[in-house]
Amino acid sequence: MGEFDLISRYFHRPARRSPLGVGDDCALLAPAAGQQLAVSSDMLVEGRHFLSTVAPDRLGHKALAVNLSDLAACGARPLAFTLALSLPSADEAWLAGFASGLWALAEAHGCDLVGGDTTRGPLNICITVFGEVPAGRALLRTGARAGDDLWVSGTLGDARLALEAFRGTLELPADVFAAARLRMETPTPRVALGQALRGIASSAIDISDGLLGDLGHVLAASGVGATLETGRALPLLAAGAEICEPHWALTCVLAGGDDYELAFTAPAAARAQVEAAGRAAATPVTRIGRIDAEPGLRLLGADGAPLARRFAGFDHFG
Amino acid sequence: MGEFDLISRYFHRPARRSPLGVGDDCALLAPAAGQQLAVSSDMLVEGRHFLSTVAPDRLGHKALAVNLSDLAACGARPLAFTLALSLPSADEAWLAGFASGLWALAEAHGCDLVGGDTTRGPLNICITVFGEVPAGRALLRTGARAGDDLWVSGTLGDARLALEAFRGTLELPADVFAAARLRMETPTPRVALGQALRGIASSAIDISDGLLGDLGHVLAASGVGATLETGRALPLLAAGAEICEPHWALTCVLAGGDDYELAFTAPAAARAQVEAAGRAAATPVTRIGRIDAEPGLRLLGADGAPLARRFAGFDHFG
Repeated sequence: MGEFDLISRYFHRPARRSPLGVGDDCALLAPAAGQQLAVSSDMLVEGRHFLSTVAPDRLGHKALAVNLSDLAACGARPLAFTLALSLPSADEAWLAGFASGLWALAEAHGCDLVGGDTTRGPLNICITVFGEVPAGRALLRTGARAGDDLWVSGTLGDARLALEAFRGTLELPADVFAAARLRMETPTPRVALGQALRGIASSAIDISDGLLGDLGHVLAASGVGATLETGRALPLLAAGAEICEPHWALTCVLAGGDDYELAFTAPAAARAQVEAAGRAAATPVTRIGRIDAEPGLRLLGADGAPLARRFAGFDHFG
Repeated sequence: MGEFDLISRYFHRPARRSPLGVGDDCALLAPAAGQQLAVSSDMLVEGRHFLSTVAPDRLGHKALAVNLSDLAACGARPLAFTLALSLPSADEAWLAGFASGLWALAEAHGCDLVGGDTTRGPLNICITVFGEVPAGRALLRTGARAGDDLWVSGTLGDARLALEAFRGTLELPADVFAAARLRMETPTPRVALGQALRGIASSAIDISDGLLGDLGHVLAASGVGATLETGRALPLLAAGAEICEPHWALTCVLAGGDDYELAFTAPAAARAQVEAAGRAAATPVTRIGRIDAEPGLRLLGADGAPLARRFAGFDHFG
């Protein structure tokens, strides 16, 4: 089967929201009046962003999910995406699985596939995603202010828990492993929450490389510091913090990677609005600390006393 | 050096034409009123789209050039791009060279780098490019009509000539090889010509996989056929058709790949306008045939008699 046949068989569906989709040199996008286009690209490589054991449908889901998560962090509504795929061989079973996971998530978010590229080479998936956000209303990393609350969505650390079980560092009961693996392989982009937080949150980021590292980007961009109460964050490990030794539980939650939850800040006066946004988006939100004028990130233990331990963030070249 | 340091050192320059560039979860683009956004993604893999012998600055040029070529084929004005890079190691000399070639071409076209991703893995370069085109005025593949002239820009086949010399299939004099290699490694996207052809050309495509294959996409999309005069196309080999045996010369010109010239159609009444557009864009244009109502592609020899030979198009999975 040739390149063009493959593309048309698995990745060619009519675009619904774009003037021109797959099949010309370019796709054409037309943001509505008053809207800006939010754009993000993520590249996924085997062994770095997924394991060779992942089922192709879960990988199709994840490849789009990590991109939608960037739109969520900006408060943008998904519109379209391009897919560039490098494949070692034209394996039809793999493509069928990958496409099914990709399309299921794309359709759930009304997101058109508008173009892309397919080539032979080491497995590599690069998606660029487009969303709409009212001009000037995107959630940015620069808006955190001293006195703001620090919040996170959903649960944290289970993807890292699964990764450590795969690596053999930890042993998990079969049902706990299956649930954590699902979290690692099929993250939930917090698209509805991101949009619900527009005008409420003062800053936001998606947690892809671990809470501490990604929060560090917000603090640096906003010129502030933060105090994080680990006693509030630790229960966010869905598997339960008692599933592994305390050091691992805290590492997974604070420096896990692959969470694709939102970390965001909001004025303390907006607590009820944040909670209402979480309910409207059917997404749990948890307050885990506060923003300080003093630079740096301070961790408090469950007893409220400062923690001295350091947790390295995830770095693809680290 | 960590991932974020690498990115900020080589790929972080202020965006000039976008509300928000590199450094947040998404970039924000705001097409001007009445403009559509043209989008294209191309992925480059070693051994498929470039050889391991290419100098990093030339590769940086080529990675963006092949994407700008897609904008050219739509008649769009370049605006911005994202870059996703997978690298086997954080080789600073390589990055410095790659960045210099990339930036030189980006600045020549006023095209902002607005986001991207860097990871460790087999070398892979994925660029998504954005351009503006007045709503409804993009050049498409669907507009070729019986009676239209068939045109190409620039020269054809020299990139393939260089590739065959690398492969050892052909021997070339050193100066001819150097010139052909430059053509293969640093293609010229016909951005000015594409814009100059808006309102004149009835259809356009960029020639990435060989003239015959890419022309075939236009014919299929437009529901027409064509007659191509090889006697007019053959002189477009810049090295000179006599540099190799006739079969190879014709193969390079008709099925070469990596040309990144434009193939386009225009009404016969618009010949003077096409030539004026070529002059305005400082880009040679050559009429090489005509569009027919009868489907299929007919090749005429230098003597005007039909040629029966078939030339396979380039297919990354072929």
